[in-house]
Amino acid sequence: MSLQSLSGFRDFYPGDCALREHIFSVWRASSRAFGFSQYDGPPLEPLELYQKKSGDEIVGQLYNFTDKGGREVALRPELTPTFARMAGARHRDYKKPLKWFAIPQLFRYERAQRGRLREHFQWNGDIVGEPSLSAEAELLALIDHALRGLGLTREDYVIRVSDRVFWLDFLADRGVTDEKGIYNFLQMLDKIERTPEDEVRKKLNQFAGSYNLMLRSLEEEKREFADEVFTLLKTGTTGSFLDEIKEKKTASPRLNTLLEYCDALGLSDAVEVDLSIVRGLAYYTGVVFEVHDRGGKFRAIAGGGRYDNLLKLIADVDLPAVGFGMGDVVLGELLRDKNLVPSAADGDSYYLVITDETLRPQALTLAATLRAGGYRADYPLSAAKVGKQFQAAEERGHRFALIVGQEYAADGVCGLKTLATREQVNIRPLIEHGKVTSLAPVAC
Amino acid sequence: MSLQSLSGFRDFYPGDCALREHIFSVWRASSRAFGFSQYDGPPLEPLELYQKKSGDEIVGQLYNFTDKGGREVALRPELTPTFARMAGARHRDYKKPLKWFAIPQLFRYERAQRGRLREHFQWNGDIVGEPSLSAEAELLALIDHALRGLGLTREDYVIRVSDRVFWLDFLADRGVTDEKGIYNFLQMLDKIERTPEDEVRKKLNQFAGSYNLMLRSLEEEKREFADEVFTLLKTGTTGSFLDEIKEKKTASPRLNTLLEYCDALGLSDAVEVDLSIVRGLAYYTGVVFEVHDRGGKFRAIAGGGRYDNLLKLIADVDLPAVGFGMGDVVLGELLRDKNLVPSAADGDSYYLVITDETLRPQALTLAATLRAGGYRADYPLSAAKVGKQFQAAEERGHRFALIVGQEYAADGVCGLKTLATREQVNIRPLIEHGKVTSLAPVAC
Repeated sequence: MSLQSLSGFRDFYPGDCALREHIFSVWRASSRAFGFSQYDGPPLEPLELYQKKSGDEIVGQLYNFTDKGGREVALRPELTPTFARMAGARHRDYKKPLKWFAIPQLFRYERAQRGRLREHFQWNGDIVGEPSLSAEAELLALIDHALRGLGLTREDYVIRVSDRVFWLDFLADRGVTDEKGIYNFLQMLDKIERTPEDEVRKKLNQFAGSYNLMLRSLEEEKREFADEVFTLLKTGTTGSFLDEIKEKKTASPRLNTLLEYCDALGLSDAVEVDLSIVRGLAYYTGVVFEVHDRGGKFRAIAGGGRYDNLLKLIADVDLPAVGFGMGDVVLGELLRDKNLVPSAADGDSYYLVITDETLRPQALTLAATLRAGGYRADYPLSAAKVGKQFQAAEERGHRFALIVGQEYAADGVCGLKTLATREQVNIRPLIEHGKVTSLAPVAC
Repeated sequence: MSLQSLSGFRDFYPGDCALREHIFSVWRASSRAFGFSQYDGPPLEPLELYQKKSGDEIVGQLYNFTDKGGREVALRPELTPTFARMAGARHRDYKKPLKWFAIPQLFRYERAQRGRLREHFQWNGDIVGEPSLSAEAELLALIDHALRGLGLTREDYVIRVSDRVFWLDFLADRGVTDEKGIYNFLQMLDKIERTPEDEVRKKLNQFAGSYNLMLRSLEEEKREFADEVFTLLKTGTTGSFLDEIKEKKTASPRLNTLLEYCDALGLSDAVEVDLSIVRGLAYYTGVVFEVHDRGGKFRAIAGGGRYDNLLKLIADVDLPAVGFGMGDVVLGELLRDKNLVPSAADGDSYYLVITDETLRPQALTLAATLRAGGYRADYPLSAAKVGKQFQAAEERGHRFALIVGQEYAADGVCGLKTLATREQVNIRPLIEHGKVTSLAPVAC
């Protein structure tokens, strides 16, 4: 019996791997276009690193174990703690703001469910040392640039921005400052899209009741607590972004500033305000955001926000930071859904057809000089009939067949056949210093 | 106290990561130029996969553990077993010969030694379904292409080819067919470069004595067993490759054929025969090879060979295969040694200098349209003096500063300063459909 791979881990056969690498190459190109430098950390870290950031309850979701040296270690569930450790340790060696990106593979161990993955790849972009909202705007522009580089349009996706601190201020202003109360309130917002409005309103009013907030709402605002919350939420979701800027309609001064930057960066029709977004992770300290497909068919494409306290916690360095993560799984599903998977045959490539085995040495030399000249070239590794060779050229996704026959041995002339159209011309490879520098057409 | 990473795991800060990514990009480009398709497998596999290939003794070197579900698993020490599993499982879906490559991170757990790594990246190239030596030749040409793509020359490295089966035939011919005898003999060859010749000769003759081989050697060859072995070794190491082909001097018919292919592929001055190379791994079934720096300063740069039985063992499919691995660590050391590390400033990039904060919205829009047009552009995220901005442009490795002043707001004209030469000209960014399409010079 042949062996199986572990449940939740993917085999990347060539087609799947080509899509993965296409995504990675766009992520890298966009990052570089924006002046981000690539970094990476170990896929295995001390368990303590994740406990320090997220508390002991995180351990249940981690792919952690005791290594042969008795150390408690974990396959990284996210890169941010590693990033905080690295950036914190050597931040003096780099100019601030520091703009870094990475494409780590991440791991988690949850109960096995059908189709549930235990690993995925994630593009991470982070800016350290910049307190202003121009850092958030820069990340949103970067995300938008990459999604468009993958062929998506702003009709396919939307970047929803929110402000976690706005709600903390809102609660503090009403005397709710205990962790549990804050948590419960944010949980209600987080679930708002998946819960009937009646039920949310009921829960909000119950919450208000337990904190004696009802009276204030009724007295000052002439309405119930739930009404007040829904009104605030709706200022952010009326859709027209430009109206919101012009009228300074969002309830958060931070979002108003962010929207101005976004407008200058040409993101007007990509960004919307949605104050119901609070993000699960407790370490966010300001603006948070999520990217969704507009059709609402998939989970979030990306998410992130400001985390000004994490470098202090992990690396004892007081530096503001903002970052995002974009996974390969949902993005891949969306690209497939939108028919944006690139074809295997990317660009020109040549398959040498060897018409007579005695010509094999000449064909090998031609393949070598083509490749040295920057051409993509392949040839049959063993003798095959000419018809089979043309078939192989097509099946392997080559654009051209280059026919090496007696005319090549005698005069250096090959037939060049465009496989899609069956058109054929004669060409003479020009070889200089062991490299093919051109494939010049030859008059018939 | 800040947290440390695990011993033996590397942090890739931007400079180190840039070198790593440079190596990866050349590996990928060479693979594609040769018609190889990229694949990947899980970094974590069932322990059994490695036991099946290498026996139980391998476990001592593995980064293995029991997972939360009670499964015995291991971080992959090599990709070949995964490759054999994957290629074996779906070989019918792909045309043979199958040419695949990957760049996995690999892991091992050995006693911690200073500077000894527990992970590295490795470029793997494999051909499945081709029994002829043209497959080996193709891999050697691929390795050579990549090393030259990294800036190395054939004066920096040499590809040493050998034939494991030649020695197995040699021993069988003399009646030595037991595994232990074969192992002991190959071990002696493997250590020949690090052992004084006297000592090797003594051990070879002792070995011959224990198998009663001495008599035959003396009778037929008129010399001692050790002499015979050394004479065979030297036919392969006389240096001049072309002489060896012409005179069919190597003792292995397989190597003679391989050398003919290598000659046609332009590898004459890259490849040498060295029959002392046997490779540690027992699963090789034919030609084996190693790549070394000619200076002999480093460990092997790459190694590989034919393994015609592994797919049968792992996936119950009878397909011949040949492959190689090239690690990032020794290669990186060699590139540093030869001063072939690319500089951080790769290609044109633009840093926008904002002369007046009121111009920030225009500068942001210009940055966005530059990036949309395929330019690499960056700008200060918060207000800074103009002198500081020029300094930042240089420190971040940009080639140009693009000065956004009142003239840009009024007439769309920017100063373009080449930072290395301090030369400055006026240009007008041409913006079409939200993208900068050119930076046209403006007459003074």
